Amino acid sequence: MRYLKSDNTAAVSAEILRALADANHGTELAYGADRWSERLDAVYGEFFGTPVRVFAVSSGTAANSLALATMCPPWGTVLTHNEAHIERDECGAPEFFTGGAKLSLVAGAGAKIAAADLLARLTWFEPHVHGVQPRMLSITQATERGAIYTPEEVRALAKIAHERNMRLHMDGARFANALVAQKVSAADLTWKAGVDVLSFGVIKNGGMNAEAVVFFDPTHVADFEFRRKRAGQLFCKGRYAAVQLLSYLESGIWRRNAERANGLAARIAAAAPQLLSEPIATNQVFMKLGQARIDALVTQDFGFYPWGPTGSGEARFVCSWDTPEEDVDALCAALGSLR
Amino acid sequence: MRYLKSDNTAAVSAEILRALADANHGTELAYGADRWSERLDAVYGEFFGTPVRVFAVSSGTAANSLALATMCPPWGTVLTHNEAHIERDECGAPEFFTGGAKLSLVAGAGAKIAAADLLARLTWFEPHVHGVQPRMLSITQATERGAIYTPEEVRALAKIAHERNMRLHMDGARFANALVAQKVSAADLTWKAGVDVLSFGVIKNGGMNAEAVVFFDPTHVADFEFRRKRAGQLFCKGRYAAVQLLSYLESGIWRRNAERANGLAARIAAAAPQLLSEPIATNQVFMKLGQARIDALVTQDFGFYPWGPTGSGEARFVCSWDTPEEDVDALCAALGSLR
Amino acid sequence: MRYLKSDNTAAVSAEILRALADANHGTELAYGADRWSERLDAVYGEFFGTPVRVFAVSSGTAANSLALATMCPPWGTVLTHNEAHIERDECGAPEFFTGGAKLSLVAGAGAKIAAADLLARLTWFEPHVHGVQPRMLSITQATERGAIYTPEEVRALAKIAHERNMRLHMDGARFANALVAQKVSAADLTWKAGVDVLSFGVIKNGGMNAEAVVFFDPTHVADFEFRRKRAGQLFCKGRYAAVQLLSYLESGIWRRNAERANGLAARIAAAAPQLLSEPIATNQVFMKLGQARIDALVTQDFGFYPWGPTGSGEARFVCSWDTPEEDVDALCAALGSLR
Amino acid sequence: MRYLKSDNTAAVSAEILRALADANHGTELAYGADRWSERLDAVYGEFFGTPVRVFAVSSGTAANSLALATMCPPWGTVLTHNEAHIERDECGAPEFFTGGAKLSLVAGAGAKIAAADLLARLTWFEPHVHGVQPRMLSITQATERGAIYTPEEVRALAKIAHERNMRLHMDGARFANALVAQKVSAADLTWKAGVDVLSFGVIKNGGMNAEAVVFFDPTHVADFEFRRKRAGQLFCKGRYAAVQLLSYLESGIWRRNAERANGLAARIAAAAPQLLSEPIATNQVFMKLGQARIDALVTQDFGFYPWGPTGSGEARFVCSWDTPEEDVDALCAALGSLR
Repeated sequence: MRYLKSDNTAAVSAEILRALADANHGTELAYGADRWSERLDAVYGEFFGTPVRVFAVSSGTAANSLALATMCPPWGTVLTHNEAHIERDECGAPEFFTGGAKLSLVAGAGAKIAAADLLARLTWFEPHVHGVQPRMLSITQATERGAIYTPEEVRALAKIAHERNMRLHMDGARFANALVAQKVSAADLTWKAGVDVLSFGVIKNGGMNAEAVVFFDPTHVADFEFRRKRAGQLFCKGRYAAVQLLSYLESGIWRRNAERANGLAARIAAAAPQLLSEPIATNQVFMKLGQARIDALVTQDFGFYPWGPTGSGEARFVCSWDTPEEDVDALCAALGSLR
Repeated sequence: MRYLKSDNTAAVSAEILRALADANHGTELAYGADRWSERLDAVYGEFFGTPVRVFAVSSGTAANSLALATMCPPWGTVLTHNEAHIERDECGAPEFFTGGAKLSLVAGAGAKIAAADLLARLTWFEPHVHGVQPRMLSITQATERGAIYTPEEVRALAKIAHERNMRLHMDGARFANALVAQKVSAADLTWKAGVDVLSFGVIKNGGMNAEAVVFFDPTHVADFEFRRKRAGQLFCKGRYAAVQLLSYLESGIWRRNAERANGLAARIAAAAPQLLSEPIATNQVFMKLGQARIDALVTQDFGFYPWGPTGSGEARFVCSWDTPEEDVDALCAALGSLR
Repeated sequence: MRYLKSDNTAAVSAEILRALADANHGTELAYGADRWSERLDAVYGEFFGTPVRVFAVSSGTAANSLALATMCPPWGTVLTHNEAHIERDECGAPEFFTGGAKLSLVAGAGAKIAAADLLARLTWFEPHVHGVQPRMLSITQATERGAIYTPEEVRALAKIAHERNMRLHMDGARFANALVAQKVSAADLTWKAGVDVLSFGVIKNGGMNAEAVVFFDPTHVADFEFRRKRAGQLFCKGRYAAVQLLSYLESGIWRRNAERANGLAARIAAAAPQLLSEPIATNQVFMKLGQARIDALVTQDFGFYPWGPTGSGEARFVCSWDTPEEDVDALCAALGSLR
Repeated sequence: MRYLKSDNTAAVSAEILRALADANHGTELAYGADRWSERLDAVYGEFFGTPVRVFAVSSGTAANSLALATMCPPWGTVLTHNEAHIERDECGAPEFFTGGAKLSLVAGAGAKIAAADLLARLTWFEPHVHGVQPRMLSITQATERGAIYTPEEVRALAKIAHERNMRLHMDGARFANALVAQKVSAADLTWKAGVDVLSFGVIKNGGMNAEAVVFFDPTHVADFEFRRKRAGQLFCKGRYAAVQLLSYLESGIWRRNAERANGLAARIAAAAPQLLSEPIATNQVFMKLGQARIDALVTQDFGFYPWGPTGSGEARFVCSWDTPEEDVDALCAALGSLR
């Protein structure tokens, strides 16, 4: 099958595997006291251009939920998009980790939250005990529909949040894809724009089984560390998580892999621009194909997800760092012939 | 440093690393629908000689807590030893995952629960709403003080539990060490003796970052799967967890590694049998050294943990699958000269 | 102030106070083993025409949340209206009591859930571990906008729910108001229509501080009893809760009080029918007054809540069992003169 | 039956009933904005001789659990006596309300915690993420075996706690009994001795269904208020809870009732001092009767609880504010004749 279902079906970059093998010698202190874990803060601090605290966890769900639980009390609510991964695809993990905080949903094109929509949604809440209190905003970069937030957009949302004593979480499962799509720095997209904590995705873009949680403010780190342990997300052989996070930045695959994935997606988009249902920005392509075209592509052995409500005729194609060129060529050709 | 602090400081067996590399080709379905994950039930079923359901998680804490949460309601209690890992070393993970169930503690030599002590503790509970209800028993195999339960001992405890509608969980972080220490089968030590769910440790004995939860009864599997996802313990690139679990059994390292670790520990014990504070059974050695001997060994660059209350003079040495022979030789010599 | 803000600002019916005084003699077994608590099942069973299990709790929030927690697993979701009390006015109590289950919202006129809208919302969920699973439907009778569900409407919703292995909870904070508004029996509106568990409101309609949770199916009762105790909702002097529930039915105030409240509301509605923003059905009146009329009424010392989004110009008037006739007369006159 | 099982089987003091009736006129703002609720802080502040924040809840379990949840994070632990009500008689409520914090147990005669035992237990905890962190100490005044803490004893425990950044909770279900048993002030026994939050029992000593949570430090009050609402413990008709708390202090029944109950217990103790298994201090009498005497008393229609482990031969008699004199006379006579 020509497989374009998701970037989480990709293999692991050779750089990551090599780093794992290189670390596999002799005894090392457990639970994050190893030589690699101890370098995390410095390496990520350099990447972001500011002191940070960085922790490895084993999934994006764990990264998001632990970050939220650290900053949102049980009687708080997390404002987020109604298509957000934390709302739709984590089986209630945020509610579990926070002790029952609520997610309060905002709609918006491209799975993006617009400042005006956030402001409108916030008017629903009153500062009394009858209702949950907005304490966090969580945005996804790139979004679940492949869109990106610019630094200015992040800053506008952060301002709204911070003025109300809310913290800003960024679900960066595809952060690298969003970053290389813009001519900005990692700092511009995060702490300089007001992000308080980032789930920095590694797995989809070449990693194996470690994601990074990056705190730009150390206030909540102690609480996080207890919660991480208590959630079974502190690994005894911590070096094998840490080297993935280190190699991801130090080998440069964060950029190379993301650029390749974005580039392949751009080619698909260019093959049938009239079918795009979302502007192409990162490594996800959304097209309004209609059922006939969908059936034709399935017959030609392309693997992808239908998207949106049943019968919408929309499809999503995702390119990863190791999607074969020939699969993309074939899809472009097929889309052309289906015009 | 000659490092005998814990088996979780060891490296990863070459077989596991090779299996990871072998699996690292091309696209694979995510979230446990890959070729390797789909073989888990069969391979573990053969090992245990009965149909099982097997799931990978990223830590022993996650394995234990998810197993307990699946079978113990929030108003239930888990009977366990007061030195158990779930009580002492998991920062309240069982309470978190169960939604606030309680651990009720039983004392006992060797960190083992004796049937009589369990029966005595159970008399504390009454079948009314004022108190939590005993719903699980959790035992550790091998125990936190290196002891093992025989099949007969497990069976006696299981009988007590099952007669009271309690389920039996075995924390097998060092299950292989306990198994090779006895002339019994994996079946004898688990389901044939009444174990309902097993946390099957892989990491300490050569694995990297995957443990197995093994259900001998499928009743609770659906609930487990939702809870695992919700806990951030369902991995998108599931193949890299599954191959660790498969390789662990199929390469035979579960046995080779455990035998080696146990054998090294036996040599340490034999070097100073008069100092043993626990009978030697697996890969952990407990000795009443006194502070003078402890200081002497520290001076000689041996790394190990003092054990028990401050000032007890007890020490723990743990051998792993890759503890250097020469470190054990040196320790034996040192212990001899300290007599 | 002429006070029409809510029926929860009313005093307690004389019948209830008398019943409390009558029960206040001598020693009585604690925690629900008293003479009055033991009659609850029989008295409520007769009212509903079927065997039931009935339990007192101290608030509607506790009634709703404990009922939901008993039937919805942490990885489940409760479908409910987006204006429902459990979503808007309980500070996340359902999430707390369920261990982090989600509320999934359905819109609809009159704060009612239409069968078609429920069906549409249910298509969002898929039977895999990535998303929460619909396990309950919760409807409010009468609704937060004063509307009622007919037995046929309840039955249609129950059918949809039960076909999907979901249970049906009815938040009956104003159940009596909804019941007397229709020519149907309590049975017709509940178990005969498919309701599995009812929060039967007593407090707003003349009670002091006890609500009833009524189970029409005993399956979940044992779990409920442990959860109630654990939530601090099992009262040692249980007789003072039980007599409220008994007196409410046996004195007939459930009907008299609800009829009076509904009747007063009907008079307000009739005074300015052209202003009604919801059809009048029970004891709540919703009117689109516009800001000028609202200001005028405030100036005339009427107490009521603006409703809906800021600037909507809508107001809610609620009549209770003890709202003074003259206050209603005055409001009717004022509304007339404001035309 | 001559009923001496517990003080929670008593009726409600006439003063409380009268206060409820007196408050039962007309409309009153809901949810604690009524005239009575607004006086709580002042009246309790005068009683304690310091500014306080006071909140009503419907049970001692709710009072204790909400107080603990407000000050103990989920990864914290509450040090308490192994016979404490929060450990033995609340079905895991503290674990539920805290989101899974642990109770760590200390033994001690009279169900009291001695400073030395507390210090010894605290050595078990280490300031790393593997174990829960001591964040609260909870003591019961009077204890579950009828003993009292003196101000000096409380101060010693508070000092230990505060030095370790732990807060001190006092479960004062029988606070009035403990207070009148000593020649000290309410201030001496609480904030002056270092108590941070008090569950102030009203129900057992003449109240109906309201207990007070008293904060001597306002830091955690905002969090408490959200948690209380979310737990279904904020009552819409708040006046009926508030008047109980007010009447309890203002009518002086807190003292009269407690003195009477203590006095009756003293008479029972004096009737057979040689049988006492605990020194008599408050309104609970513990006697080592042996099975023969127990059987004889049961035959004579005395109602009381056997205490301790099965076969211990110990019994508990509790006197309440309304225990009949003649029942106490009869018990004294019976104990005398059984000598």
